Amino acid sequence: MLAGLLLLPAIVSVCYGEKCVWAFLITAALSLLLSAVFMLAGRTKNHIIYAKEGFAIVALVWLLMSAVGALPFVISGEVKSYIDAFFETVSGFTTTGASVLSDIEGMSRGILFWRSFTHWIGGMGVLVFIMAVVPNVSDRSIHILRAEMPGPVIGKLVPRAKETARILYIIYIALTLLQIIFLLCGGMSLYESAVYAFGTAGTGGFGIKSDSIASYSPYIQWVITIFMLLFGINFNLFYMILIRRIGTALKSRELWCYLAVAVVSCGIITVNIRNLYSGWGEAFRNSAFQVSSILTTTGFSTADFNLWPELSKGVLLLLMFIGGCAGSTAGGLKVSRVMLLFKLVGRELKKMLHPRSVGTVKFEGKQMDEGVLNSVSAYFSLYIICFVVIVLLLSLESFGFVTNFSAAAACFNNIGPGFGLVGPMASYADYSVFSKLVLSFAMLLGRLEIFPLLLALSPATWIKK
Amino acid sequence: MLAGLLLLPAIVSVCYGEKCVWAFLITAALSLLLSAVFMLAGRTKNHIIYAKEGFAIVALVWLLMSAVGALPFVISGEVKSYIDAFFETVSGFTTTGASVLSDIEGMSRGILFWRSFTHWIGGMGVLVFIMAVVPNVSDRSIHILRAEMPGPVIGKLVPRAKETARILYIIYIALTLLQIIFLLCGGMSLYESAVYAFGTAGTGGFGIKSDSIASYSPYIQWVITIFMLLFGINFNLFYMILIRRIGTALKSRELWCYLAVAVVSCGIITVNIRNLYSGWGEAFRNSAFQVSSILTTTGFSTADFNLWPELSKGVLLLLMFIGGCAGSTAGGLKVSRVMLLFKLVGRELKKMLHPRSVGTVKFEGKQMDEGVLNSVSAYFSLYIICFVVIVLLLSLESFGFVTNFSAAAACFNNIGPGFGLVGPMASYADYSVFSKLVLSFAMLLGRLEIFPLLLALSPATWIKK
Repeated sequence: MLAGLLLLPAIVSVCYGEKCVWAFLITAALSLLLSAVFMLAGRTKNHIIYAKEGFAIVALVWLLMSAVGALPFVISGEVKSYIDAFFETVSGFTTTGASVLSDIEGMSRGILFWRSFTHWIGGMGVLVFIMAVVPNVSDRSIHILRAEMPGPVIGKLVPRAKETARILYIIYIALTLLQIIFLLCGGMSLYESAVYAFGTAGTGGFGIKSDSIASYSPYIQWVITIFMLLFGINFNLFYMILIRRIGTALKSRELWCYLAVAVVSCGIITVNIRNLYSGWGEAFRNSAFQVSSILTTTGFSTADFNLWPELSKGVLLLLMFIGGCAGSTAGGLKVSRVMLLFKLVGRELKKMLHPRSVGTVKFEGKQMDEGVLNSVSAYFSLYIICFVVIVLLLSLESFGFVTNFSAAAACFNNIGPGFGLVGPMASYADYSVFSKLVLSFAMLLGRLEIFPLLLALSPATWIKK
Repeated sequence: MLAGLLLLPAIVSVCYGEKCVWAFLITAALSLLLSAVFMLAGRTKNHIIYAKEGFAIVALVWLLMSAVGALPFVISGEVKSYIDAFFETVSGFTTTGASVLSDIEGMSRGILFWRSFTHWIGGMGVLVFIMAVVPNVSDRSIHILRAEMPGPVIGKLVPRAKETARILYIIYIALTLLQIIFLLCGGMSLYESAVYAFGTAGTGGFGIKSDSIASYSPYIQWVITIFMLLFGINFNLFYMILIRRIGTALKSRELWCYLAVAVVSCGIITVNIRNLYSGWGEAFRNSAFQVSSILTTTGFSTADFNLWPELSKGVLLLLMFIGGCAGSTAGGLKVSRVMLLFKLVGRELKKMLHPRSVGTVKFEGKQMDEGVLNSVSAYFSLYIICFVVIVLLLSLESFGFVTNFSAAAACFNNIGPGFGLVGPMASYADYSVFSKLVLSFAMLLGRLEIFPLLLALSPATWIKK
C-alpha cells in the first residue's frame, strides 16, 4: 500500500520537474519487495486475529511504515541524517507535526508533499484504509480497527468491520476535498491547498512555510480554524448526519463538551491577549485559531504563542492534554475520556456522602460497563506514568523544564509545537539523537493510545501458551 | 485545645524574656471564648457522626484553627499582613513549610517556636489528638480519624478508635523525643533541637535559618535525613514493631517500595550532581538529604537544588508527587496509592491480552475490594484535576511556568520549597494576596486529601433530606 501511496508525491515531483521523484520510486520498489517477503513468510501461518494479534499488527506496521517512509527524505539528500528523517516521518504518520527541519522553504515540493501526505494517511489509520479497500476482510479485523482508532469505545457504525472502515474513509475524503475547495477559493494554489488540507484533516500540522499559517489571509486562517474543529469531531456523528439522524448527532454530550471547552478557552485567551493585538477582532482570530489548533492537536499556528501571557499558555497546555473527540483524527486524552474521568470523580464524591448509594455512570444516555470505566481509569494512570517517564528521559538534556515538559506534551499528544525552545517558530533540531528517538516513541505511543505499542513490546504477547 | 497548645510557645517567650508572650495569651483567651460559644451553640444538637459529618468537622476545624493560629503572628507585630500570617499558619498546620517571611533570623524565638510547633500539631492531626485525650469518645469518631489521616485505607490498629489515636500519638511523641536527644548530642541547643524535631516529625520543613539546614554539621544533616525517612513510614509498622510483630512489619510491600524509590532516586542524583561537589561523599550526603526531604514532603534543604542539573530536578519533582507512606505524617499521593495505580494498569494490560481473565488486585497479601480500587482511581483523577486548576489560577501571575508549576506541586503536596522563584533559598513573599489564598487552599486540600474539604464546600453536604 505504501508503494501505491508513494506514487502520489512521485507524480507531484514529475509535475514540478524535481529530481526527488527517484527517491519515491526507489522507496516504492523497496516497499513492494518487503511486502513480497512478508507475504511469502506468512503464507502458511494461521490467520485468525484476536485482540493480541490486533495490537501486535498495528504496532509493528506503524514502526515499519515509519522506517520505510523515512527513506525518500534521505535518498533525495534533502535530510542528511536518517534519525532526523525517521523523526519527521513518525511525526507525520502520527499526525504530530513536530519538525526537526530548519529550512522548510528550501525543500523540494515533492518531499514537502510527501511530508504532509503522511499526516493524511496516519490520520484515519493506515490499517483502517487497508481494511476499506482490500477484499475479503474477515470480521475479526475489528480488533485492528479497535487498536488503531483513538478513543475509549469504538462503536461499529455498521455490523461489518469492512463497511465501517469504508464509510469512515469516504467521510474523511469528502471533508478533505471540501476543504481543498474552500482553500482554492481563498486564492491558494492546488498544491498548497492539498498540503494544508492534509495537515488539517489528519490534525497534523506540517506546512510549507516556517511561520506556519501566519502569513496567510484571515479568510484562509478562518477556513483552517473551522476545518480543524470539524476534524476533531467524532466521525460517527458525520455518519449520523449522512443517514439523516441529525437529532442523534446533536444529542452527543461529547460534541457539546468539546465545543464548550473550545469556546471557553477561546474567550479566556482573547481577553488575556487583547493588549498584544491591534483590536478585539485580531485577538479573537488568533485566539480561535490557536485554541482550535491545539485542542484538535493539529499544531498549526498564526502567532508565536510562546510570547503570550502565562495564563494563555497555561490554557493551551491544558488543551494539549484534553485533545479532540474520540473517533476523530485528533490526539490527546480525548474529550470523552476526560468526561468519564469527571463522572468517576463525581460518583466517588457521591459515595462518600451516601456510602450506600449504588453509583452507576451514564454516558451518552447509556449506562457504562464497569470494565470500560476501569479501562478508562487505568488508561489515565498509564498515560500519566508514560508522560512522566518521557519528561525524565528528556531531562537528560539541559534545555530547561518548560522546553522538555512541553516537548513531551506536544509529542505525546501529537500536537507538534510546544513552548520554550520547541515553540511554534522553532524546531526540535537541537535535541540529541537519543531524545529524538524518545520523542518518536512518544508520538507513536500517543497516536496508538499506548496499549498496542506497550503490549507489542511485552514478552507476554509473544510467548505461546 | 488550641488555647492549651499556645501555652507552650508562651512559656518559651517567657524563658527568653520576649514581649510576644502576650500575643499567645490573647490568642489563647480568644480560643477559649470561641470554644465556649461553640459549646453553647452545639448543646442541643444531635451528636451522631457519620462519614459526612466527619468530613465537615475536619474541614471546618482546620480552617478555623488556621484562622485563629495566625493571630499571634499579627498581634506580636512580627508579620504585618494577616493574609501572610494565615498563609504561614496554614503552611505550618498542613506541614508544608512554604514561607512568605523573608527575615527569619530577625524574628523572636517564641514566634518561631509556635511556627514550628504548628507542624508538629498538624502532622499527626489535631482531631486525632483530641480523640486521644478527651474522655468518652464514641467509636463513630473513626470517621474523623479516616478524614484526617492520610492514605487510601486506614487500618484501625485496635478495635477502639480512641485507643488507636492514643497509640499513634505515643509513637509520635516517642520518636520526636528520640530525635531531640540525637540532635542535642550533635551540639544543638534544646530550643533548636525541639524546633527541628517538630519540623521533621510533622514532615513540615520550617526552621530558624534562612538557609535551612545548610549551615549545620554533617552529623546533624544525617540525623535529620534518617528521621525524615522514619516519619515517612506508615505508623502502623512502628506499632507492629512495638507489639513484637517485626516480621509482619518487614513484610510491608509499601515500606520496601518506599525505600527502593528513595535509594534509586538518591543513586541517580548522586551521580548527576557529582561534579558540583568536592567528592562522592558530599554529593551523596546532599543527595540523600534532599531525596529524603522531598520524598517525605518535609522540605528542609542543605543545598540550593534549584541549581542542580535538569535530571536531578526532574527526579525531585516526581518525588514531590509520590510522597511518603500512607498512615505517616507525609503528604503527596502516598506510595501505596501509586503502587495500586500501577497494579490497576497491570491488570488492564493483562485483560487486553487475555480478555477473559478475572483480574483481582492483591496488595499487602490481601485481595483489594473493587470499591477501594475505584476510590484510588477517582482520587488520582481528582488530584490531577485539582492540580491543574491550581496551576491555572497561579498562572494569572507572570512568574513563569517553572515557578508556578513547582509552587503548586510544593504546596499541594505539602513540601514547601519548589523551583525557580520559589526555590529552597527563596520564599513565597512575592505572590499576590489572591495567589497566597489559592496556595493556602491548595495546602489544605493536599493535607486533608481533597475529599473532606471539597465535600465540606459542597451544598449537597448541608442540605437536609
